[in-house]
Amino acid sequence: MEQRGLTEHELSAWRTSIRMMELLRTRIEQQLQAASGLSSADYAVLSVLSEAPDGRLRAYELGQETGWEKSRLHHQITRMHKRDLITRERYGSRGIYVVLTEKGLAAIKEAAPGHAQEVRRLFIDPLTPEQLDRMAGIAGILLDHLEADQPSP
Amino acid sequence: MEQRGLTEHELSAWRTSIRMMELLRTRIEQQLQAASGLSSADYAVLSVLSEAPDGRLRAYELGQETGWEKSRLHHQITRMHKRDLITRERYGSRGIYVVLTEKGLAAIKEAAPGHAQEVRRLFIDPLTPEQLDRMAGIAGILLDHLEADQPSP
Repeated sequence: MEQRGLTEHELSAWRTSIRMMELLRTRIEQQLQAASGLSSADYAVLSVLSEAPDGRLRAYELGQETGWEKSRLHHQITRMHKRDLITRERYGSRGIYVVLTEKGLAAIKEAAPGHAQEVRRLFIDPLTPEQLDRMAGIAGILLDHLEADQPSP
Repeated sequence: MEQRGLTEHELSAWRTSIRMMELLRTRIEQQLQAASGLSSADYAVLSVLSEAPDGRLRAYELGQETGWEKSRLHHQITRMHKRDLITRERYGSRGIYVVLTEKGLAAIKEAAPGHAQEVRRLFIDPLTPEQLDRMAGIAGILLDHLEADQPSP
């Protein structure tokens, strides 16, 4: 039923791509969960914070970095706060800093090598350097388009 | 923290790619939910069944087609059964057929054009035909690798 509006060729490209993305995501998540109890979303937040000065970012900046909408970011921060992986600090009347805790820093330090190894095994190593560059180039085009685009009403 | 084991160049390719995949997935899901109340997973099942003879597949075959593991497939089928989008029929002592219902067929018929339009808008149209073919080629390489691979212990 998916064909309407797509040629067979386009449909085939889409299905291969989306299936790869689904399976890659599942595998990356499985390794993280099994090895460290972190979700991919936890990892993304910890990773961004661990690279920020003093392990601290405005919630707004964290949203920019992760590409998440406000409500998703809010839920994720709340969950991670309960687990003591991050803490929140207010500034001004409405602003919030998200800050990496010692426990959060320890968690990402422990998880990072295994995660990097899995990324290498499932995504980097199967491709030639040229293919990896092409993949990144195409992903960049799509990402620019997605970020500039308004969601459908 | 992610760098260990990855070069800056590899890390950058990975981050661009995974962020694109996340955002694309979110957008596709949002359009489906808003327009039809279906999740991407619902859509995948209905799509595969609607192309099978008599709208019917063995659960095992459905797992092959979607690439999902047994427990994920089971939960998905249970949820869709409750919503009367599919039904289950036993065969032999342990086998199950998953069968598209009239309601499921109507749901995918209604959802398909809007979904195809969103796939075109977010994935097909931003790329040249050559880029789309490259994307599909690289996705195919990664998918073959993922499917042949055993999950990390």
